[in-house]
This record gives sequence, structure tokens and C-alpha cells, in this order.
Amino acid sequence: MSQTFDIAVVGATGTVGETLVQILEERDFPIANLHLLASSESAGHSVPFRGKNVRVREVDEFDFSKVQLVFFAAGPAVTLSFAPRATAAGCSLIDLSGALPAEQAPQVVPEANAQVLAGLKKPFQVSSPSASATTLAVVLAPLRELLDLQRVTLTASLAVSTQGREAVTELARQTAELLNVRPLEPRFFDRQMAFNLLAQVGTPDAQGHTLLEKRLVHELRAVLGQPALKISVTCVQAPVFFGDSFSVTLASARPVDLAAVNAALEAAEGIELVEAGDYPTPVGDAVGQDVVYVGRVRSGVDDPAELNLWLTSDNVRKGAALNAVQVAELLIKDLV
Amino acid sequence: MSQTFDIAVVGATGTVGETLVQILEERDFPIANLHLLASSESAGHSVPFRGKNVRVREVDEFDFSKVQLVFFAAGPAVTLSFAPRATAAGCSLIDLSGALPAEQAPQVVPEANAQVLAGLKKPFQVSSPSASATTLAVVLAPLRELLDLQRVTLTASLAVSTQGREAVTELARQTAELLNVRPLEPRFFDRQMAFNLLAQVGTPDAQGHTLLEKRLVHELRAVLGQPALKISVTCVQAPVFFGDSFSVTLASARPVDLAAVNAALEAAEGIELVEAGDYPTPVGDAVGQDVVYVGRVRSGVDDPAELNLWLTSDNVRKGAALNAVQVAELLIKDLV
Repeated sequence: MSQTFDIAVVGATGTVGETLVQILEERDFPIANLHLLASSESAGHSVPFRGKNVRVREVDEFDFSKVQLVFFAAGPAVTLSFAPRATAAGCSLIDLSGALPAEQAPQVVPEANAQVLAGLKKPFQVSSPSASATTLAVVLAPLRELLDLQRVTLTASLAVSTQGREAVTELARQTAELLNVRPLEPRFFDRQMAFNLLAQVGTPDAQGHTLLEKRLVHELRAVLGQPALKISVTCVQAPVFFGDSFSVTLASARPVDLAAVNAALEAAEGIELVEAGDYPTPVGDAVGQDVVYVGRVRSGVDDPAELNLWLTSDNVRKGAALNAVQVAELLIKDLV
Repeated sequence: MSQTFDIAVVGATGTVGETLVQILEERDFPIANLHLLASSESAGHSVPFRGKNVRVREVDEFDFSKVQLVFFAAGPAVTLSFAPRATAAGCSLIDLSGALPAEQAPQVVPEANAQVLAGLKKPFQVSSPSASATTLAVVLAPLRELLDLQRVTLTASLAVSTQGREAVTELARQTAELLNVRPLEPRFFDRQMAFNLLAQVGTPDAQGHTLLEKRLVHELRAVLGQPALKISVTCVQAPVFFGDSFSVTLASARPVDLAAVNAALEAAEGIELVEAGDYPTPVGDAVGQDVVYVGRVRSGVDDPAELNLWLTSDNVRKGAALNAVQVAELLIKDLV
């Protein structure tokens, strides 16, 4: 019999946590016992796993020495509270909240920098980057040498599910109110989200950058191993339920060989290249899929050293939950 | 009594044409007789003007010698058919279709290059650029010298009204079907537009660029008077009814003086600068307004020679109809 592990998922009732549990089942992750954990408000709920409803318990009362690996899929405050307790109990962890510093838990996207895992000591601590950074890293990694990548300029149009289940409900509610010509009273968002674009996701700092934008820059540089890479980023909230989209302009050190770019994208793991003339959409392609869709591959209108791409991926699945599980799959052979 | 003119509007029943007639009335354009024209399918409809319903007649049968100025607010084919007849009759024209070459009818955005009008001969022929180029020109013109502008990288998220009234109806219809959990059968768009982003507006050429993207590049260069300006552009169709939005990254030849940028934008005509920390949206700010809203003014995360902006404007009104009327207001003093 092959080896199995005891695993915990913190934040099991959130959009990412629930998808993570589903992916562990789909990919037949070698689990002996699965412990689903959440804050006291969500404890008592249950989440389906292997045909049973697994009861969600309070993370506060959990003994981390019972598991070899824990996924932190709740907010940064939860990770900061419980990560020390987990590692003290000898439990390895994969954090999806962005709470831990890179020195403690390096950012890993298996398609881009799996080699980082080889240098870690037990108990392992790994960060799974933000959905945006993960999606971009999957696509830029196979291109970075080919292009001698100088600069990334991008606009990220994020799905409302990036902000959790309440945001999804709110977009549906607002849309229904408007279609029924009822007065709109924004609740989750501070203004109309339906049929609108919100150009700022979160509160900006004194320089005007949001945490999400700064996190994307730092994580993408870390995962690509290019700490000085120039990255310009705007994160926008789009009236889309699931699936983030990215309009990306890359500056190369030399004229771009489009045939080589297409070949590299075709050959890469985790990418589905859409044929020229067509393009992928979040709803029609990305949602529920394990790959990042890439389309509109083209040079600049008259700059041959420019490469433009359109990316879309399932922010909850490919951007977050699946990446964490992929990291876990690479770690398990050394877990015990 | 001050002088008045006889004016014609071709395409008077379209979204832009109707708004144009409304703006002529609002701004008290000195009109003696207004002739509303359209193709034979739309002839017979009527459009309100100064408290009366003006009957729309067939452009085919119109005698252009009856007017001193005609606006072409229909498609390029209509302009190409009737512009020669208008100018042969001594009638000046303002074209909104993009059909006429720059040598014949230069692109003009009054806030950016009104001086071009002084060089024209009668009958005048002027092009009012695409809504995207107009919006961008209004904002970039007061910045071009301050920044010594080197490169513009932008993602345009276009409202469905860019594609006319049918596209507006289709977004509403698709949204209602989805909210009522009925099967979606796309009609106007070739796929789901509701709660989705379509990364390609129109058919791309062999290099992957759409006509809209190439038109934007050429028009923006022409209006800014920078024929070699590097412009990278992606036009995306967003599930928004009215109001185009632009995520813009500008490369300057030197570190950007943000205070000077803000002062220049504050002082400029046709712009409303939204205070730092807040941001404008198409629905909440731009729709129905005569200005381009600018927000999220910031440098790069760590590139001081970069300037990022978020723009939004009413594509039908500020982007198209109003710009044409503003051009007309500058031309009329020399019309007769």
C-alpha cells in the first residue's frame, strides 16, 4: 500500500477552501484523515468529501500534531495566528493568504519555480501566491528567457469571487435589482458593481497603489526569480462572477519571434493556447478548468520587440486552490 | 440677430446621431433648419428637437445644397457614398465614421489640436475620431510636453453601446436570461457577453490587431501630433451599457512630477480629476457627462518615470457626439 497523510484545511467553508477540498478528492490526494477547520462562526457546517459530509471544526481547538500538512485558505490574520502553532507541532504548511514573509515561506508556482521546494527544511512552509500572480507566473515562466523579459505592463480584470462569496451574491443581487428597475442600494461594494467597472480593489496607499497590486508585483518577481523586473499593474473589479482576465504587454530585449513564443506556450505545462483569430473568455473557457487560457498573441502594432497576450483563468481554482494542491503533491514525497 | 445655419445630421436615428441632435439643442447651436437623415429603413421615424418631433428623411434623396454643414454619424459606407455629394454642393462636413483619409478630413479633438482647423479650406472636411481616441487625446494633450511622452500602453474596456443599440439590448436580454436560469442563446455577440469579458472587438488582421485598435493608434498619433509615438493597445468588450474605461500606463522621458501632472489635469479643458484615494466609474460618473473623468493618478510601483491613469467617459456623448459638436462650434464662425 502506498503512503497516506493526515491533512487539515483551515478556511474550509470559503470559496477557495471548498474548492481545495474538491480538488484533493478529484486528484486522489493520498489522504488518510481530512480535518476541516474554520473560525467559530463557520464551525458546525459540513463540506462533502469522498461521498461523506465532513464536519467543520473550530481551528482554535485543533491539535496540529494530528496532521502532517495544513493548508491555510482563510485570511492573513488566521494564518498569522495559527501558523506558529502548526509548525511548532511539526506540521508542514501551505499558506494561500499572503501573510507570511518570503524568507519564512517562499512563493511557489510549480510550473515556474518548483526547484525552490528542494531547498526547504521540515516542517515545510510554502506560500501559494495570489491568483493573479499565479496565473501570470504560469504564462511568463516559459517565455522569460525567450524574450529576455524587460518589462510587464498589465491590467487585471478581476472576478468578484476574488473577494469571496458575499461579493458574488452582491453582484447577482445588484443585477437583479437593476433589471427589475428597483432602486440600487450597494451593500458589499461601496457603489454599483453591476454593469460597471471599479478601478480600485482595496484601499490605496499614499502613492496610490493597492495592496493587491503591490502583492502581485512582489510575488511575480519572486516566482520568476527576477527581483528587478519592471512591472506596471492596475487591478480592476469587473462584473464577472468567476475567472480573472489579464491584458498583458511584455517588453522584450529583442524582436519577438512569434513562432517560438507560440511553440513555447504550446509546450508549457498548465497552459491552453487558443488559436489565432479566436480568444478565450473567463465564462466560456477558464471557469472550472485547470489551465490558464492564452490568446490574442501578437506583437505591437509597430513595435516588434513587444508581445501582447490575453490570459484568463479560474481565480478560485487554477489561481488559488489547485496551485496549493500542486505544491502539496510535490512536497508529499518528503513529508514523513 | 446673430447668424444661424442650416444643418443636416446623417444617421439621426442611431445612438450617436440621436445624442448629437440632443447636444445641438442643449448647447443652443445656432440652427435655422435641422434636417435629419437616415437610410431608407430608418426614414419615417422622428427625433425630438426643440419641443417638436422632426421627421427623419432618406439621405438618398437629400439635396445637400440646402445646408451649410452636415454631420455623418452613420457607418463608413454611408459617409463614403454621400460625402462627395455634400462637398460638391459646397456643404462642409464632420464625419464620425472614420471613413475619410486624414489628408482629406483631418482628425480633430478641440481640447488637443483645434489649431488644425485654421488651415482648412471651404467646404470644410473634418473627422471626429473614434470615442477611444477622443477620450485619450483629451487627457494626453495637456500632459504630452510635461512628460515628454515616449510610450502609451493601454487596455480599453469598451461599453457595448460602442456597437450600437442592438448590442445594448442584447446585453440586457442575456443578463435577464441568465438570472432567470434560462438557456443562453447569444444573438448579437457570438458568445456570452453578460458577466463576461470579450477580449477582441471585431475581426483581427493577420498580425492579430483589430481595426478598432489600429484606428485608435493612428488617430491618437494624428491628434497628438506625434506620428512616431509608441502605442500598445488592447480593446476589450465589457458588460457595461454606456461609458468606456481606459487603464493607461505612460512612459515619460524623465521622473514624473506628480504635482505638476495633477495641476495640468486640473487646469485642462474637458477633464474632471477625481481626488486621490477615490476613482471614477463609467456608471457612477461618466455617463451623460461632458468631461473625461481621470483618477488613480500614480507613478509606477518603483518606476518614477511611469505615470498610471484610469479614464472613463461617455462613449456616445463625450467620445463621439459632443466632440463633433465642439468641432462644429469652432467651424461655424467661418462657415459662411
